[in-house]
Amino acid sequence: MALERHLGCRPVETGPLDVVGVGNALVDVISLESDEFIGRHGLAKGSMELVDPERAVTLYGAMGTTIEQSGGSAANTLAALASLGGRGGFVGRVCDDQLGAVFAHDIKTVGIEFPIPPATSGQPTGRCLIVVTPDGERTMSTFLGAAGELDADDIDEALVARAEVTYLEGYLFDQAAAGEAFLRAADVAHRHDRKVALTLSDSFCVERFLGGFRELVAGTVDLLFGNESELCLLYETKDFEEALGRARVDCAMVAVTRGAAGSSVVTDSMRVDVPAVPVAKVVDTTGAGDFFAAGFLYGLTHGHDLETCARLGSLASSEVISHVGARPEASLAQMAVPILG
Amino acid sequence: MALERHLGCRPVETGPLDVVGVGNALVDVISLESDEFIGRHGLAKGSMELVDPERAVTLYGAMGTTIEQSGGSAANTLAALASLGGRGGFVGRVCDDQLGAVFAHDIKTVGIEFPIPPATSGQPTGRCLIVVTPDGERTMSTFLGAAGELDADDIDEALVARAEVTYLEGYLFDQAAAGEAFLRAADVAHRHDRKVALTLSDSFCVERFLGGFRELVAGTVDLLFGNESELCLLYETKDFEEALGRARVDCAMVAVTRGAAGSSVVTDSMRVDVPAVPVAKVVDTTGAGDFFAAGFLYGLTHGHDLETCARLGSLASSEVISHVGARPEASLAQMAVPILG
Repeated sequence: MALERHLGCRPVETGPLDVVGVGNALVDVISLESDEFIGRHGLAKGSMELVDPERAVTLYGAMGTTIEQSGGSAANTLAALASLGGRGGFVGRVCDDQLGAVFAHDIKTVGIEFPIPPATSGQPTGRCLIVVTPDGERTMSTFLGAAGELDADDIDEALVARAEVTYLEGYLFDQAAAGEAFLRAADVAHRHDRKVALTLSDSFCVERFLGGFRELVAGTVDLLFGNESELCLLYETKDFEEALGRARVDCAMVAVTRGAAGSSVVTDSMRVDVPAVPVAKVVDTTGAGDFFAAGFLYGLTHGHDLETCARLGSLASSEVISHVGARPEASLAQMAVPILG
Repeated sequence: MALERHLGCRPVETGPLDVVGVGNALVDVISLESDEFIGRHGLAKGSMELVDPERAVTLYGAMGTTIEQSGGSAANTLAALASLGGRGGFVGRVCDDQLGAVFAHDIKTVGIEFPIPPATSGQPTGRCLIVVTPDGERTMSTFLGAAGELDADDIDEALVARAEVTYLEGYLFDQAAAGEAFLRAADVAHRHDRKVALTLSDSFCVERFLGGFRELVAGTVDLLFGNESELCLLYETKDFEEALGRARVDCAMVAVTRGAAGSSVVTDSMRVDVPAVPVAKVVDTTGAGDFFAAGFLYGLTHGHDLETCARLGSLASSEVISHVGARPEASLAQMAVPILG
């Protein structure tokens, strides 16, 4: 299939980068379903669950008409960063198949470097089955496929060294080899005096790998992203302020989203609380955290103060939840003009 | 890829059908672009052009972030018919690849029979690169792939015989073997006292195959669908009333869409003009004609009068142009309650 092989071969830029993301290269398969669907198929609403091929087939078979669009948490963040005018790279694995070509096209066409070639053997490109309910909440069942085959050898030292921030997707902790890729990327970043950011990604994910996450956060992470419930789970407390206080001890910077309540950012010397940007209707929350991180990282790597970083995060987040799919539909740079001038 | 092979294997119903569609099985690849993009890539705005793999690669490479969703003109009609509560079947060809699995899933999950198994060799599943401009107009470049390999042997007599109407997609005229499939389907339908409907599909398409279309319309077609400009081209006149008058002589029934001006339906004894259903914003006109045909055919096969048929067509059309993509996002049956009670 020569057509597939040549898709998305737009040349990419070289030079310094704002962010390199390490994450799952996935194509989202999205359908709108009732709450009853969630119950009938034993899904945990709002969560991300890894599924095997059999479960993926059953669920997909039950889903109504779907839309396919590139996804993956860190990849969404990079795409949103690009829409703000940022420069980035993405490290993740796809297979040399049609969905892999879709993923590669969508990340490269917005100007993000994506240097790992598609695998010519092994599992097909991973996909995330996303059920969006009428309240805009998304429930995800991920068949990792090729994405799950990422390992430490995929971390390109030169690429990581070029980026001000190396951004790690917590979901990758589901795979042991990917965990090693994390550590290698973080090690390379630190050796080059770069910052390491981690997003906690998902409550269940935090619960499953509590020890590993705690160690990573305390020992390696400079900038921690997560939402309120993920942070509380990480520190095994119901008290958000306590969790935030403890995270502040572990990491130089912590940025936490709190849904409609906005976001809180702390460093050892500062705290900033920023309200959410209201939207007319929350259509699909997929990518809300990814886009917050994108706005925040764009601000941070462009010399803005913490409040501006958080406001850019809220703004980007408001864009992605107002439509189906986790890639920007509007120019985030244009939307950010009132903030950045 | 066991996963791909098992996708969309929901069991289908048997029994009488309202409509069997014969058309191109395509996955739409949609991006939002400026008018400048249309000019720069030499596209004819609002048209459908067939492209070879090289051109598809170039265009796709130039397109921004895309959404993938099942498409194909007649397949869209069948999906919309199903959303109205109608029963149908679809005859078209996909390859045994990921996009083929997407197409099969989306048509089967709404209850449409899709009996032709994916081809295990030959070209990949076809796709339609759709550029949507800010005015909501769509410009299509189609790489037919496996869809173009449809031939007369694919026409299943039993399936066609079960359907009240056999609906033929004019786009298929682009392929000689598919033209034979048309004739065979029409022949089978008539031998079983069924009706044959044709949609003209596209102005360029009508121009390219004027003689063939005229012969088909005059000799075989019972119910003709098209828009104003296609009908005028078919009869080589600028006068819509003249074209309509001549079509009325050729076919027992003619249903013509006129954009914002609504639609006109004529038989030998009647004429009905129905206004368009206004929409807040025309987002993407892809599928407007397909959905008009769906509403009309649903009405016709459920014993409604011509005015109701045309109103159902306008209603269905208003749904599809209010969002990106050519498959229903809302329940058309629910939307039709004020008309059907």
